[in-house]
Amino acid sequence: MEFTVKQIAALLGGTVDGNESLKISQLSKIEEGQEGSISFLANLKYEHYLYTTAASAVIVNKSFEPRQPVQATLIFVDNSYSAFTKLLEHVNRQQPVEKVGVEQPSFIADSTRIGDRPYRGAFSYIGDNCLIGSNVKIYPQAYIGNNVTIGDNTIIHTGARIIDNTVIGHNCVIKANAVIGSDGFGFAPQPDGTYRAIPQLGNVIIEDNVSIGANTTVDCATVGSTIIRQGVKLDNLIQVGHNVEIGKNTVIAAQSGIAGSTKIGENCVIGGQTGVTGHIWIANRTKIGGRSGVTKSVKEEGLSFSGMPAFDVKDSLRSSIVFQRLPTLEKRINELEKKINNQ
Amino acid sequence: MEFTVKQIAALLGGTVDGNESLKISQLSKIEEGQEGSISFLANLKYEHYLYTTAASAVIVNKSFEPRQPVQATLIFVDNSYSAFTKLLEHVNRQQPVEKVGVEQPSFIADSTRIGDRPYRGAFSYIGDNCLIGSNVKIYPQAYIGNNVTIGDNTIIHTGARIIDNTVIGHNCVIKANAVIGSDGFGFAPQPDGTYRAIPQLGNVIIEDNVSIGANTTVDCATVGSTIIRQGVKLDNLIQVGHNVEIGKNTVIAAQSGIAGSTKIGENCVIGGQTGVTGHIWIANRTKIGGRSGVTKSVKEEGLSFSGMPAFDVKDSLRSSIVFQRLPTLEKRINELEKKINNQ
Amino acid sequence: MEFTVKQIAALLGGTVDGNESLKISQLSKIEEGQEGSISFLANLKYEHYLYTTAASAVIVNKSFEPRQPVQATLIFVDNSYSAFTKLLEHVNRQQPVEKVGVEQPSFIADSTRIGDRPYRGAFSYIGDNCLIGSNVKIYPQAYIGNNVTIGDNTIIHTGARIIDNTVIGHNCVIKANAVIGSDGFGFAPQPDGTYRAIPQLGNVIIEDNVSIGANTTVDCATVGSTIIRQGVKLDNLIQVGHNVEIGKNTVIAAQSGIAGSTKIGENCVIGGQTGVTGHIWIANRTKIGGRSGVTKSVKEEGLSFSGMPAFDVKDSLRSSIVFQRLPTLEKRINELEKKINNQ
Repeated sequence: MEFTVKQIAALLGGTVDGNESLKISQLSKIEEGQEGSISFLANLKYEHYLYTTAASAVIVNKSFEPRQPVQATLIFVDNSYSAFTKLLEHVNRQQPVEKVGVEQPSFIADSTRIGDRPYRGAFSYIGDNCLIGSNVKIYPQAYIGNNVTIGDNTIIHTGARIIDNTVIGHNCVIKANAVIGSDGFGFAPQPDGTYRAIPQLGNVIIEDNVSIGANTTVDCATVGSTIIRQGVKLDNLIQVGHNVEIGKNTVIAAQSGIAGSTKIGENCVIGGQTGVTGHIWIANRTKIGGRSGVTKSVKEEGLSFSGMPAFDVKDSLRSSIVFQRLPTLEKRINELEKKINNQ
Repeated sequence: MEFTVKQIAALLGGTVDGNESLKISQLSKIEEGQEGSISFLANLKYEHYLYTTAASAVIVNKSFEPRQPVQATLIFVDNSYSAFTKLLEHVNRQQPVEKVGVEQPSFIADSTRIGDRPYRGAFSYIGDNCLIGSNVKIYPQAYIGNNVTIGDNTIIHTGARIIDNTVIGHNCVIKANAVIGSDGFGFAPQPDGTYRAIPQLGNVIIEDNVSIGANTTVDCATVGSTIIRQGVKLDNLIQVGHNVEIGKNTVIAAQSGIAGSTKIGENCVIGGQTGVTGHIWIANRTKIGGRSGVTKSVKEEGLSFSGMPAFDVKDSLRSSIVFQRLPTLEKRINELEKKINNQ
Repeated sequence: MEFTVKQIAALLGGTVDGNESLKISQLSKIEEGQEGSISFLANLKYEHYLYTTAASAVIVNKSFEPRQPVQATLIFVDNSYSAFTKLLEHVNRQQPVEKVGVEQPSFIADSTRIGDRPYRGAFSYIGDNCLIGSNVKIYPQAYIGNNVTIGDNTIIHTGARIIDNTVIGHNCVIKANAVIGSDGFGFAPQPDGTYRAIPQLGNVIIEDNVSIGANTTVDCATVGSTIIRQGVKLDNLIQVGHNVEIGKNTVIAAQSGIAGSTKIGENCVIGGQTGVTGHIWIANRTKIGGRSGVTKSVKEEGLSFSGMPAFDVKDSLRSSIVFQRLPTLEKRINELEKKINNQ
């Protein structure tokens, strides 16, 4: 990339305070700025870096007023974070063209149909009776089983495993080593203490614009489908059990787990390392803090929870603070008992 | 599949209330029933679906008495859940024959011996001096290292990694991207603050009828063996540390971790996202709730625990409930102190 | 292996009590000792095994005094654990020579350069413009993307994914199915409730002597780099978010997660299943107990924490103990109130 500050300000609809003709050749974090780099300031926790950064230019909010002299040229915009994101996208589009074509050896069953402009990396595998759209990229060593459907523009990264009968929509990203459609964890206890595997005959349906993180697992349904609705974003190392449904635009951070048959609503936000128990419902727009354990259905929309078991986020925080004083509380009760018994 | 209700009732040893000659062509969840589908009702939480389902037939418990008129034909059996499981197995046996044969390119060392009727998928790899039984299926892109033993009828799914010296029994299932026999996490601290890797010379032994989930990791022993006894079922994304032993028929849900050198007894049930610390023993038939942390040995058999650190499950639940009232408790102590000091 | 007790004692600088000419052919755990095996005793929790073990020899601390007669020959050393580690290393060096050479089919782009004595397993993939050192081992089915740099003597195990632009130093070990450099979890919320992926243009830098566990994920930075400093040891199934930095010689146990933009200091020790929130700093030599949640920066060096949220480890333990008495505490408050109101 090579732009002037003026060009970037025009792209972002911003106004410049400083030298418009400076040349920018890279993006940087504000604390790692150098000559020729542009950065941004959104979180005021990082404001002190603005006064020392070596970046040539910094994107800031219109409302921001520096409290010390600033060396860098400033570009004022409505929202510095989304402006920087826009700039990232612009630069990204200028990156070298992505791979197209077929690397050998790769495996594709005769019965499978694939659309225009595919990329199929070396050692990728596509089984029988698949229906794969246009502009689909299947990276090296990825696996597509039998009877799989994949929509246009979807990317299956290296080592991802798309097991039999999975349906994936358009514009999805399945990251490296994710496993979609593996058998759900269903075992019937036998009288002699052993367990017999319950056949898992269902599948996984992933709608459009979904992102699935690296090493995340989404199990197939026993019967019917495990469903990930459009726009859902799952981080890395997440477990989604059989027959789960996740509503559209819900975002779940890394290492969380959703147990079997639970339905998560739309536009929920779930923090990392959280667990949601099986067979419950979570209403739309619910927010769950990180490391929480949700053990009951949430019926009212738009509420926030945390803790294990999870309850109202503010009450949970208050209880956590008192928890740290528990030994003192106990002592105070001891004192009170002594006093009252001595009366 | 295509059966009549009468045929299904005969298979399950049930009695029919309704039209015996209805044709059934698929299985469904009760809330997703449609003409030609059969479903089941076990958990009464879902009873209301029975009165509105479009399923042609529903399997219910003998003891169940509908409280409203039911449109669907009912099949009464002793246990509706296990009857449905039996039906699933029956349908599963009717699925198209599983793959047999060798897809190319695939890699197998000359020194390795493999039994009858193997399936070896494309890009699968089998190293030196392995001994592999009959009817073993090694899916595409799976990896078998050197000196590995695998019993009859075992399935190694796509992307699973069976590292050197691992021994796997008969009728096991190793799911996609699981890693068996990777080096244990052993590092000796050095005087300069660095760590040196301790050679991990042991292996992993997996007995018969074991199921290992997708993206689960089972580390090899430092010396001796990490042992997974017969009938153990491990869900996805579980960590099993070096020199751990898991007793027969124990079931562990997703994202749990067992630290090094711990022994888990037989027929234990461990909920998801639970951690068990290293170098402890857990007695047979212990039950541990989800998201618990077990920090001490459990010597008595058949007890239940939860919490972090884990203690008796009922006491733990009681403490959790009081925890939610902690701010109130503190206020009440404040009040008491004021009153007593003003006396 | 085949040594005499005398040879082993000489190697370890120890003194022998018993038969020096016994032949040792294998290493064992003390509870699994047999004729011809040598074991060690470090943790006195296992002392009772010393009096019953069938091992021919046992390495013990100089300071150790048996309280009962011992059948096995004893080798006394300064530190039995590190002596045993040294013996393991010695035996490990005697193992059959590791693989060198190229197995076919494997894929390497013309533009990539690779040093002397490589091992490249079958179905391994190396993309464009990589710079790979000498003595590097790339196991079967491993993936190296474009513009990746790998230092001398580094091992990339089977199924590991090294995504574009990653830099890895010398003497590193990346275990099976680890994913390094996958896109960070960055999505910008849109007014209509959907999310747009923020391009992740940064990379991952892994310095020398780092070990990364099986199925662990280290995300690339949005801009700049996610950095793993020299000597860091990460266990299995760990999540490292975008723009994280982990200081040198820090050790993190399995299933922990570090959220985006957090900096962990040097020589920290973090227990398993722990979460560290985003955008915070953790001082050098901090110790965090297993299953903790760190929600605030730690500014003072050398402290220990545990709990969720984490606070001083001893206070946390004390609060946990009182937590188990919470129902009783509440009852005692009820009693006190009754008494005082009846006065």
